[in-house]
Amino acid sequence: METNLLAHGRGILSSQPFSASLGTQVEALVRGHAELSLEVSYSLLQQHGFVHGGVLAYLADNALTFAGGSVLGDSLTSEFKVNYLRPVRDATSLLAIADVTDSGARQAVCRCDVYFLKERERTLCAAAQGTIRRIG
Amino acid sequence: METNLLAHGRGILSSQPFSASLGTQVEALVRGHAELSLEVSYSLLQQHGFVHGGVLAYLADNALTFAGGSVLGDSLTSEFKVNYLRPVRDATSLLAIADVTDSGARQAVCRCDVYFLKERERTLCAAAQGTIRRIG
Amino acid sequence: METNLLAHGRGILSSQPFSASLGTQVEALVRGHAELSLEVSYSLLQQHGFVHGGVLAYLADNALTFAGGSVLGDSLTSEFKVNYLRPVRDATSLLAIADVTDSGARQAVCRCDVYFLKERERTLCAAAQGTIRRIG
Amino acid sequence: METNLLAHGRGILSSQPFSASLGTQVEALVRGHAELSLEVSYSLLQQHGFVHGGVLAYLADNALTFAGGSVLGDSLTSEFKVNYLRPVRDATSLLAIADVTDSGARQAVCRCDVYFLKERERTLCAAAQGTIRRIG
Repeated sequence: METNLLAHGRGILSSQPFSASLGTQVEALVRGHAELSLEVSYSLLQQHGFVHGGVLAYLADNALTFAGGSVLGDSLTSEFKVNYLRPVRDATSLLAIADVTDSGARQAVCRCDVYFLKERERTLCAAAQGTIRRIG
Repeated sequence: METNLLAHGRGILSSQPFSASLGTQVEALVRGHAELSLEVSYSLLQQHGFVHGGVLAYLADNALTFAGGSVLGDSLTSEFKVNYLRPVRDATSLLAIADVTDSGARQAVCRCDVYFLKERERTLCAAAQGTIRRIG
Repeated sequence: METNLLAHGRGILSSQPFSASLGTQVEALVRGHAELSLEVSYSLLQQHGFVHGGVLAYLADNALTFAGGSVLGDSLTSEFKVNYLRPVRDATSLLAIADVTDSGARQAVCRCDVYFLKERERTLCAAAQGTIRRIG
Repeated sequence: METNLLAHGRGILSSQPFSASLGTQVEALVRGHAELSLEVSYSLLQQHGFVHGGVLAYLADNALTFAGGSVLGDSLTSEFKVNYLRPVRDATSLLAIADVTDSGARQAVCRCDVYFLKERERTLCAAAQGTIRRIG
């Protein structure tokens, strides 16, 4: 069933044109926990050569929704906040790890840590927290 | 000088590979105020056909930074939060309008309203607030 | 009816033991808009003689709920964020002004500006944004 | 030295008139970690008999600042967000546990979980995240 959840999550992500165009991948998805990764390419950068903050926000948002959705079913993000901790430069990829902090019947509050990977080292670069709401 | 600020902002946005790849435009940029627009295409959607929340977060983040940068100079977003107000479906374009709420020498707090446009009507779809920090 | 709303709000605030103990007052309450004030006394300060940030957060939270409640009825704050803009020193009183940014049947997103008053001048000291949810 | 940090923190808290008036206690304070408690009394409630959200926000804010201050020295909260997870009714006390998520020379990003205690059981009731800034 965990395998099914992962397969289900991969199906959802691949049916998001935005995520497909960026190349986001579901690395893990179990009840209450989601991991999304994204390979860093030139097209994700901003004017200083850092990964664009909007990319980190997108990835955090999506990981929050996947974590929340793993306990709620079909879901949307209601709101979230993100703190950027350091610029991401020369990274190979990003990894967003999200967990459900608390959940009820209709919504869940989740947290997400976003890391960048560079020469096999993982460095925290953003921290997010938000509310995921079940659809319908 | 306001014209110069707008031209300067357009130069920055066009030097962001991520923004260039999405097609974001600077509609207005004056001291303390920024407007960014983005034409909605299939590649910005999620699995239900709505504009991906990450796109709205990216646009809000970028507009916040442009508003803050208009008073601070070269800047980064430190943190922001966004509330999604309604799904964006069948929209033609997005418009993010950001204003400086308060600014000091090193940082500014800004707010942003994101609208979608559909048959010439403008509807609020996201509200953001965040901190912009001067670089250096 | 606006008079009734104000009277109703004053009744609610006076039935909050925490607000009554601090001395918070409803200055205005109309559909979509609330203003709460609080006289600054020694017992609201922190160790540097500034008004404690928790007092500003409390006042913003309460004003957000009153604004949201003015369109939703009996309500609670689901979440909010607050940016502190400057320390509040030697102020006479605080004034929190909150407005509904967007509302649906079950919840509203509201924003709040908190000012301090000193020698009849009003200075912005905190900016908040949050979600108010109807009870039941 | 950890003992000194705890003693130092207790000195700061007792020199906050607002915290002293509410009766907040420092339960633990080590580098990167703070725990504050608050006994629930009638004067902390709102109109439904729940602990006022503003009290939870105050306690989270203060715990965030103590955690951040434990690595930065004398500090203030720049901004934070809080998600309320459930109403707090008939609780004996509140416990806010805050940890530094990331810190630099001038600021730290911290997270805080607020629990209520009732018949010796601990239940999560609020989750916060924010930025703490060193003074000076």
